[in-house]
Amino acid sequence: MCIKREIPLGHFQARSQQLPALPRRALSTGLAPKEEPEASVPAAMLRRQLLAWPAWLFRGPPGPRGACALGADGRPVGPLARRGCCSAPGTPEVPLTRERYPVRRLPFSTVSEQDLAAFERIVPGGVVTDPEALQAPNVDWMRTLRGSSKVLLRPRTSEEVSHILRHCHERNLAVNPQGGNTGMVGGSVPVFDEIILSTARMNQVLSFHSVSGILVCQAGCVLEELSRYVEERDFIMPLDLGAKGSCHIGGNVATNAGGLRFLRYGSLRGTVLGLEVVLADGTILDCLTSLRKDNTGYDLKQLFIGSEGTLGVITAVSILCPPKPRAVNVAFLGCPGFAEVLQTFSTCKGMLGEILSAFEFMDAVCMQLVGRHLHLASPVQESAFYVLIETSGSNAGHDAEKLGSFLEHALGSGLVTDGTMATDQTKVKVPHVLLAGPLSVRQVQPCLGMPGRVIGAA
Amino acid sequence: MCIKREIPLGHFQARSQQLPALPRRALSTGLAPKEEPEASVPAAMLRRQLLAWPAWLFRGPPGPRGACALGADGRPVGPLARRGCCSAPGTPEVPLTRERYPVRRLPFSTVSEQDLAAFERIVPGGVVTDPEALQAPNVDWMRTLRGSSKVLLRPRTSEEVSHILRHCHERNLAVNPQGGNTGMVGGSVPVFDEIILSTARMNQVLSFHSVSGILVCQAGCVLEELSRYVEERDFIMPLDLGAKGSCHIGGNVATNAGGLRFLRYGSLRGTVLGLEVVLADGTILDCLTSLRKDNTGYDLKQLFIGSEGTLGVITAVSILCPPKPRAVNVAFLGCPGFAEVLQTFSTCKGMLGEILSAFEFMDAVCMQLVGRHLHLASPVQESAFYVLIETSGSNAGHDAEKLGSFLEHALGSGLVTDGTMATDQTKVKVPHVLLAGPLSVRQVQPCLGMPGRVIGAA
Repeated sequence: MCIKREIPLGHFQARSQQLPALPRRALSTGLAPKEEPEASVPAAMLRRQLLAWPAWLFRGPPGPRGACALGADGRPVGPLARRGCCSAPGTPEVPLTRERYPVRRLPFSTVSEQDLAAFERIVPGGVVTDPEALQAPNVDWMRTLRGSSKVLLRPRTSEEVSHILRHCHERNLAVNPQGGNTGMVGGSVPVFDEIILSTARMNQVLSFHSVSGILVCQAGCVLEELSRYVEERDFIMPLDLGAKGSCHIGGNVATNAGGLRFLRYGSLRGTVLGLEVVLADGTILDCLTSLRKDNTGYDLKQLFIGSEGTLGVITAVSILCPPKPRAVNVAFLGCPGFAEVLQTFSTCKGMLGEILSAFEFMDAVCMQLVGRHLHLASPVQESAFYVLIETSGSNAGHDAEKLGSFLEHALGSGLVTDGTMATDQTKVKVPHVLLAGPLSVRQVQPCLGMPGRVIGAA
Repeated sequence: MCIKREIPLGHFQARSQQLPALPRRALSTGLAPKEEPEASVPAAMLRRQLLAWPAWLFRGPPGPRGACALGADGRPVGPLARRGCCSAPGTPEVPLTRERYPVRRLPFSTVSEQDLAAFERIVPGGVVTDPEALQAPNVDWMRTLRGSSKVLLRPRTSEEVSHILRHCHERNLAVNPQGGNTGMVGGSVPVFDEIILSTARMNQVLSFHSVSGILVCQAGCVLEELSRYVEERDFIMPLDLGAKGSCHIGGNVATNAGGLRFLRYGSLRGTVLGLEVVLADGTILDCLTSLRKDNTGYDLKQLFIGSEGTLGVITAVSILCPPKPRAVNVAFLGCPGFAEVLQTFSTCKGMLGEILSAFEFMDAVCMQLVGRHLHLASPVQESAFYVLIETSGSNAGHDAEKLGSFLEHALGSGLVTDGTMATDQTKVKVPHVLLAGPLSVRQVQPCLGMPGRVIGAA
């Protein structure tokens, strides 16, 4: 049970109050080519996603790829190849947020030499003040926002986080918690000179129960590393998303991330069983239960899921991991209209039932953009809409049979006019794309430009 | 988005502060036979559960069943047959809670004639003051607690609830929300003379989306009626529990009920998408979204899930219903030890994967109690532990094959020494048992005393 009222909010800046909504044209700065005014938003998004996609994708159809060339190992290289390399010579500097938007700094104190000495005592060797090292954590992943923080702290334990926040509370210093800094809405970087509190060194798995699949870990664990850890034990993480190679589980929970497995395993509100949170005044709130259902008192941890660090800093997470599926199939289909997309969804929910793990759709314009910017040809006939269906199950034969029956029905009844299916698990591995990008290109490439089985053409 | 701070708590009595934990012997009052001091708790529990079980169960082995005889239609009749009939002549009166426990009435006002007139204006024809009619809502289902409320109000709309609570707030009158009054911990009945606010007439389905399976309904809808409603549309409710014939969905949410489908479909924190709640001062908090994931602002509705009416009265619910499974199988197995129970759980999670919908275990003593009190013989060899496994899937053939493979493996490796399996859906229908009862008898009877297929004996 964890009940605590009157949570102090003072030292956490509510970003939504400080930042106005980004104008659409803001996305055209940074990497977006100026010469494509109409298509600048998707072009910028697509190009960024491209960098995160797996190497095998690029072995497909040939064609120009702009600044993103491939190295000898098949991985993208060059100035756009890795995050953080974008500020190479010639790349324009990201403008300061405070100069770009009409935001007002609240009356917080500024960091003094005494504060730095106190931080050094709390986290020896974990105080970063080098301007060079502070460049990256001051800029968001979209390169549209830049803060001017002078200090980054790298605690290893909840107690250290508690001491830091208590000190900041007493000194009226603003704090900006930061996980993997992969957010798309600027929530992970300071607006002014807030102290950046990084969870990067809080990356220990605390326990894993091999029967129940319950993982307890520190907030700074990288999602992909957790995935690898539990997959070795025949489980999977209940969420998966494009930024998994960098994002932290604490940040996933703080932003209530959805991701590729949402349809199958539901939201973090159901799979996160417990949290440890440090409040602004340094109080450690221990809700780190690992019960499947804990009805003892109000479920305060829910308040922190999706609160984006405004109520406290998540320092540890208890999460329920589902068993690892043994078979994964992907089908990519063409639909004649939106009514058929909806009907296809209803039908596959009924016929695929428990093995349906993803359902996405895109329209013809999206497919044209995929062709134009990714130089990938559609493997199915031109259609008004396209649908991607993924199944995950425990028996490859059963799953293929269910998917086959469904596809036969869908083709026979005119819901679907064309399609292709991939059953090779290595080929259908969900790519490292960014979920906050356009829905339509989220999962399309497993079926594009790869060897698939054409299942029919009406 | 719904953000409201400083929720007034004044007029909702926090039960946990008023009621001490029930002493274990308290359960032996009422219906429990005094001559069974050691076994009195399970005996009382079992006898009460007996009343709620389906009629076909009683057609099994013959034998005395105490006061619970069967009528011509196969349904239990007699003094114990129905709730509310227990106060027949000769049945001892339930003692008043305030006389039984050292509880203190807080300084609330008492209901006056003017209050009654005001209530009559707010809910014409919905004010109950007849002492006879107030007997049942003053007593809890376990018949261990009794309040002395003089007024029961039956609103039909959220606005009526709002007007009632605003009046009570101004008049400093205590209120006790009540749904189906099926709770096992006394949370649904008054301790003193609180006004009982019944949701019984708030029983309208507001909308159902046949593609997404999202149901929006008033809080007073009976769970079983909602189940019937969505099953006609090829969906099921994400929760199912023994009291479903009486319990209200609002009460299910207010108590964060788990139930028989918890293992498969998770907790209400994941499946409840939105709530409408009336706070103590009459404010209507509209969080009745039907988005699968709504990250706009803090998810305040989560605070009300499991808050047992102490923060506000839930008046409407938006809930995600999964597709109806087409095949259900149940296996009842004997395990030689607890280590094998755990190993069986891990193995069946891996081999049955997505179709596993329930896993329960009981020990040998529980089985003896089932035999002694329910007069049902175990269909498998005597074992140290027994396991019940339920599968629900979209393809009967695939499910049976998966279950068969698992059972073959479990028997071959010595995890299981004996077992029986039922594949007839009419026989394995999850019984109306009370989940708050002993875990071990929760789901056992689908396999007891019924025609099953013996799958092996090691």
